[in-house]
Amino acid sequence: MIIILKSNLTLAKEEEIRKFLAKKQVEVIPVKRSDKTLLVVVGRFAELTKREVALHEYVDTIVEIDRPYKLASKSFKNINSEIKINGTTIIGGKEIVIMAGPCSVETKDQIREIAKEVKGAGCQILRGGAFKPRTGPYDFQGLGKIGLHFLKGAAKENKLAVITEVLDVREVELIEKYTDIFQVGTRNMQNYPLLSELGKSHKPVLLKRGMSATYKELLLAAEYILLGGNEKVILCERGIRTHVPETRFTLDLNAVPYLKHETHLPVVVDPSHGTGRANLVRAMSRAAIAAGADGLLIEAHLDPRKSISDADQAISTQELKKLVKEVKRIAVAVDRK
Amino acid sequence: MIIILKSNLTLAKEEEIRKFLAKKQVEVIPVKRSDKTLLVVVGRFAELTKREVALHEYVDTIVEIDRPYKLASKSFKNINSEIKINGTTIIGGKEIVIMAGPCSVETKDQIREIAKEVKGAGCQILRGGAFKPRTGPYDFQGLGKIGLHFLKGAAKENKLAVITEVLDVREVELIEKYTDIFQVGTRNMQNYPLLSELGKSHKPVLLKRGMSATYKELLLAAEYILLGGNEKVILCERGIRTHVPETRFTLDLNAVPYLKHETHLPVVVDPSHGTGRANLVRAMSRAAIAAGADGLLIEAHLDPRKSISDADQAISTQELKKLVKEVKRIAVAVDRK
Amino acid sequence: MIIILKSNLTLAKEEEIRKFLAKKQVEVIPVKRSDKTLLVVVGRFAELTKREVALHEYVDTIVEIDRPYKLASKSFKNINSEIKINGTTIIGGKEIVIMAGPCSVETKDQIREIAKEVKGAGCQILRGGAFKPRTGPYDFQGLGKIGLHFLKGAAKENKLAVITEVLDVREVELIEKYTDIFQVGTRNMQNYPLLSELGKSHKPVLLKRGMSATYKELLLAAEYILLGGNEKVILCERGIRTHVPETRFTLDLNAVPYLKHETHLPVVVDPSHGTGRANLVRAMSRAAIAAGADGLLIEAHLDPRKSISDADQAISTQELKKLVKEVKRIAVAVDRK
Amino acid sequence: MIIILKSNLTLAKEEEIRKFLAKKQVEVIPVKRSDKTLLVVVGRFAELTKREVALHEYVDTIVEIDRPYKLASKSFKNINSEIKINGTTIIGGKEIVIMAGPCSVETKDQIREIAKEVKGAGCQILRGGAFKPRTGPYDFQGLGKIGLHFLKGAAKENKLAVITEVLDVREVELIEKYTDIFQVGTRNMQNYPLLSELGKSHKPVLLKRGMSATYKELLLAAEYILLGGNEKVILCERGIRTHVPETRFTLDLNAVPYLKHETHLPVVVDPSHGTGRANLVRAMSRAAIAAGADGLLIEAHLDPRKSISDADQAISTQELKKLVKEVKRIAVAVDRK
Repeated sequence: MIIILKSNLTLAKEEEIRKFLAKKQVEVIPVKRSDKTLLVVVGRFAELTKREVALHEYVDTIVEIDRPYKLASKSFKNINSEIKINGTTIIGGKEIVIMAGPCSVETKDQIREIAKEVKGAGCQILRGGAFKPRTGPYDFQGLGKIGLHFLKGAAKENKLAVITEVLDVREVELIEKYTDIFQVGTRNMQNYPLLSELGKSHKPVLLKRGMSATYKELLLAAEYILLGGNEKVILCERGIRTHVPETRFTLDLNAVPYLKHETHLPVVVDPSHGTGRANLVRAMSRAAIAAGADGLLIEAHLDPRKSISDADQAISTQELKKLVKEVKRIAVAVDRK
Repeated sequence: MIIILKSNLTLAKEEEIRKFLAKKQVEVIPVKRSDKTLLVVVGRFAELTKREVALHEYVDTIVEIDRPYKLASKSFKNINSEIKINGTTIIGGKEIVIMAGPCSVETKDQIREIAKEVKGAGCQILRGGAFKPRTGPYDFQGLGKIGLHFLKGAAKENKLAVITEVLDVREVELIEKYTDIFQVGTRNMQNYPLLSELGKSHKPVLLKRGMSATYKELLLAAEYILLGGNEKVILCERGIRTHVPETRFTLDLNAVPYLKHETHLPVVVDPSHGTGRANLVRAMSRAAIAAGADGLLIEAHLDPRKSISDADQAISTQELKKLVKEVKRIAVAVDRK
Repeated sequence: MIIILKSNLTLAKEEEIRKFLAKKQVEVIPVKRSDKTLLVVVGRFAELTKREVALHEYVDTIVEIDRPYKLASKSFKNINSEIKINGTTIIGGKEIVIMAGPCSVETKDQIREIAKEVKGAGCQILRGGAFKPRTGPYDFQGLGKIGLHFLKGAAKENKLAVITEVLDVREVELIEKYTDIFQVGTRNMQNYPLLSELGKSHKPVLLKRGMSATYKELLLAAEYILLGGNEKVILCERGIRTHVPETRFTLDLNAVPYLKHETHLPVVVDPSHGTGRANLVRAMSRAAIAAGADGLLIEAHLDPRKSISDADQAISTQELKKLVKEVKRIAVAVDRK
Repeated sequence: MIIILKSNLTLAKEEEIRKFLAKKQVEVIPVKRSDKTLLVVVGRFAELTKREVALHEYVDTIVEIDRPYKLASKSFKNINSEIKINGTTIIGGKEIVIMAGPCSVETKDQIREIAKEVKGAGCQILRGGAFKPRTGPYDFQGLGKIGLHFLKGAAKENKLAVITEVLDVREVELIEKYTDIFQVGTRNMQNYPLLSELGKSHKPVLLKRGMSATYKELLLAAEYILLGGNEKVILCERGIRTHVPETRFTLDLNAVPYLKHETHLPVVVDPSHGTGRANLVRAMSRAAIAAGADGLLIEAHLDPRKSISDADQAISTQELKKLVKEVKRIAVAVDRK
C-alpha cells in the first residue's frame, strides 16, 4: 500500500499526517520525490481503515499493491518510466539505447580512441571500468580516480554520456562527479548499504541482476534504491549461473518480457558478460531487442585480443558497427527505433 | 575422421575396402546415405596414414573433424541442411517454419478446429500429442493410436504436415505411418535405443534438448540418429532447469547462435514449454527468430483454460495469429521470410 | 486414495467390485500384489462417498493420501520397506549394503578379480555394466550379453548378488536372467515405457534420480514401477547438474533425509558418479550414511588409471576397503551396522 | 609465488628488499603477519631468477604455488590452521565447534534465554543477527547497535563466544567491539571493499560461500582477507541455488572434502540456511561432520513458530540438544570429539 500525499504540502503538514498515522499504528516509510511525498505502508493497517486514510485532507490517493515490491511495480505506476541521461538520451523511450566501451579504462589514449569508434558506430553512451570487482585479488583492479578522469574526458570529447561501476559505498560521492549513470555490478545486487546510498543520489542507477537472483529479488533490490527517493533505476539482465559449460553465463532473455510485465522501469541487456563469448554477442543483441529490451550494454575493444581483462567476450569496434545496424533493423520491426 | 566413398560403389566394393581397413586396424562405422556411403572412423589410424587412405581408389575424400560429434559438425558439412517435410515445407531454408497445435489430441473435433486455425494463422505444421510422457502415472497419457488418426486427418484436411511425439522404441513403426516428423521429447534425448531406431527411419526427427543437457550432449544425441543413416535431424531448444522460480524452465536462446556455429542441422525453438508462461511466448518467439532460429514449436488451444494438459503455457489461436505476424516482421529484419 | 481389497479374493469378486466402482464413476487402476489387490483411485469420488466404499464387503480398508505419489508415500505404508536381494541381503534394513564394482565389465578375468576384492572388502553386491548408456555413439557401449554372463559368473563364484543396468525395454527379459537388481540410469528415470515394463518384473529395481529431477519427480517415476505391481523399488541419489565446475555433478545428500521423510522405499547413494572425483568418494560415503542412507553404490577398479570408462571417479580396491571400514563406524554411530 | 622474509627484520630492511625487487621488475604485495612479513609475487619474475631471490640475505624461503589462491592454498601451508576464538575455543582443531542461536536478536530476554539453552546443549558459540541483510526493504532489518549489546551480554553471562554478521564496510569498527567472529554473509562474499577492510582486523572472519559461487571463487574471496594480513579465516558452506524446489537451497557437502584438500583453513557448515527446512537439519549436521567439517552454524529458537525471521529453518532448543548428541557420536566415529 502506498499513500500519495497531495503535492507541495509543507513539511509541517507532512509531519502532521505521519504523526497521525503513527498514533494509529500505521507504520510508513516516507519517500521524497521531486514534486511530492509518498508514504509506503509497511505491514497492514491496524486501527484505521483504508477509507479513513483516503479521506484525509492531505492525502491525494492511496494505491493497493499485491506485490512485495511496491514502488517498482506496475500497480504503482502503469506507464513506462523514461529516464533522461545527461539531457538528451532517454532510456525507456521509443529509441533503443546502446552503451558500449571497454571492460576497463586502460590508458587515456585507449579510451579516447574507443570513444570515437563508439560514437561513430551510433551508440549513445560510453562504458568503461575504473574500479573493477575482480574475482581474485591479484587481478588488475582498475585505474581508480584517474581512470574516471580519462573516461569522462573521452566521453565529453565525443558527446557521449558515461556509465561506470561503483563498488564501494565510500566512493559514491567521488564517482557521482564523473559519471552520468552508476553501474551496480552483479556481485553487488544485494549490497544493501550501497543500494541505499545510491537511493539518495539524483543520478540514474543501472542495477545488474545477481548471477543467481530471481526476478523478484532483482525487483526488491531496485526497491531499496527507489525507497531512498531515486526514481531513476534501470534494470539489467546479464546472464545467470547454470550447468551449461559452453557459455560463461546463460543470458536469460525471459527476464525481459517478464520484467516488462511487472515493472515500469526500463530493462536493458548485457550480452557480452551474459554469454562470455564474442561470437554470440550480435545474435543475442538482436534477440534482446526483439524480446522488448530498451537498450544494450556491449563490451567493445579496438583490438579485443590485447585487452587486459575479459577479452573472450569483447567484440571489435568494426563488429560493433554491424551490431548497431542489425539491432536498428530489429528495433523497427518491433515499432521502435 | 570420415571417409567418404565414391558414389554408387557396388556393395562388393564397399565390402572390399572395409575389409582392407579392418585388416589395417582402422575401425569404422558405415553410414548408408541415399547416394553414397560414409565410413566414420572410430579412434585413430594405426598402421595406415591418412594419405594412404585418401589415395585408395574407392575413396572420394576424407574429412578431418576436431569435434566429438562428426556427422553433425560444420567441419563435415559446411552448408546448412535443408530438411524437406512432406514435399513442400522446408526446415532450415530461408523461410521460417511454424509448428503449432495443442499439447494433446483430445477429440476429433478439437484437433480439426485447431488445425483450421493453425492453417489460418499461417503456420505450416500441426503439432499434437497422442502418446504423452507424463511426470506422474495418474495424469492423462494421451489417446494413443486413435489420437494419431485424428491428428493426421485434421492435418490432411488443412494441408498441414504433422509432428507428434514418439516415446517407445516399439511404437516407431506405428507412428511413422501417421507423422511427417517424429518428435523426441526432452526426457528421451538420451534414450539411445530410441535414437538408434529413429536413425533407421527416412522421416525427419525433431530432437528436443534434454532439460539439463549441454550443447555438446545435444549434438552427440543427434549423432546417434545421423549414424543410423537418417540425415534429417532438427534440433530444438526447449528450456533448461535453473534456479529461476518465476518461469517453468529457462528458455536458453544462447543455444541458437551457438548451435548454428557448430552444426549444419536446423535449429528450432519451443517457447511454450521453454518458459511455461503464455504471456512470455510472443516475445520469446520474436527473440528466437532474431537470434537465428529456423522455426518455432508453439502450443496453442482454442480455449487454453479448457485444455486437459499444460494450460499455463498454451496461447489462444487469436494470440497465435498475432505471433505469426510479429515473427514474420522479425524474419524480414534478419533477411529471411 | 487407495482401496485395499480383502486378501485372497477370487478374481471374479475383484472383477465384481471394479465393475461396481466403474458404474459409480470411480476410476481405478488395479495393482496386483503377491497377497492382495489394491485399487488406486484416479481423480475423485463422484457419486459415491468414501464411507460407502469402505463399507463394501470386499474392501479391507481405504487410505487417503495427500501426495501426488501414492504407493510410494508414507501415508500408504508407514514402515520402511525391506527389500530382499537374492535370499540373504536386505536393502532398507538395519545393515548398510554396499554395492561395488567397475563401471563396465571389460573381460572375464577383470570382473572375476574385482569381484574377489569386492567380497574381501566386505561388500554384498557386485555392480558392473554390460549395456552402457554413453553420451557419444563412438564411446565403448559395453560387452552386451557376454558381459552379463561374465558378471553373473564372477558374482556367483564370490557369493555376491548382482546389479546391472537396463537401457532398452526390449532387453528386460534378457537381463532379468542374469541380474538380481535392475539398475535404471539417470538418463532413463523418465523413460516411462521402461519403468512400466519393470513394474511387471519380480526383481528389485534401483532407480537413479535424473540429473535434474526434483524429489517429487523421482518419487513419481518410482510410482510408475510400483503401479505395475513390483514393490521392490530402491531410490538412488547420484548427483545433480549445477553450476559447480569443480565436481562433475553435485551429490545432493539433502535428498536422503527428504526422501526418508516422504517414502517407505530404501534410499541409497552413488558418490562415485555423484561427485565424479575419486578423492571425494570416501568422505561423501561417510556423509551419506550419516544422513540416513541405506546403502552405497561405489565404482571401484583394480587399477583405476587403466579402466576403459569413467576412470576419474573410480577408486582402487584398496581404497574400497578403507571406505567400508570408515562407513561401518559411521553406521554404528547412527545405530545401524 | 610467495617470498617469506626472515623473522623480525627491521622495517628498513624490509623496505630495502622491496625496493630491490621493484627495481628488478618483480611486483609484490606485502602481507604483515604477527611475526614475519610475506611478499606475494604478482605475475612472474622478469629479470631475476627464483634462485637469486632465494639466496638474498633477508629471504627465509620462497614457496611456489600452482593455484590462483596462494595464501589460502595447501602449497603455502600444509598443516591445518587452528583459529583461536576468545582464548578457549579453537576452530579447526580436533574438537567440533557448534555455533547456535536465533536468526535475529529480537529482545534482551529472548537472546538471554536462548543463550542459556545454547550453552546447556553443549555449544561453544552464540550466533545472532543485529544487522540483517534482507531481500526486501520492508522486512525487519535487525535491532542494530542495541542488538549487538544484548547479544554480547547474553554471551558473556553464559561464557559463550559471539558471532554476528557485518554488512557495511562503515560498521566494521563498531561490530569489532562486540563480536568474537565477524560473519560475512552469502550476499557479501564478493563485496571486495568489505573483505579488504576485514583483512585489517585481528578478529576471525567466517566467510560464507556465495549462493552461486564456485569453490575457487570462495577461496579467492578468502584470499582478499588473508592478503590484508588477517590469517583467521573460516570458510562456511551454506547451500547453493539449484533447480530443486523442495529445499530452499541445496546444501553442497561436496564442498567440505574438496576444500579440505585445497586449503588449510577451517571449514564449517550451515545446514539451517543450507536446506531451509528444519526437518533436515539434524541429518545434514551429522553428514557434515562425517564429511570432515570442523563445525556447524545452527539456527535455533525457543519457539521457532514465533520467530520474526526465517522460522522454516530454525529448530527448537530441544532439537538442538539432540543434534549435539548425535553429532558428537559422529565426531568420535571420525576420530574427533
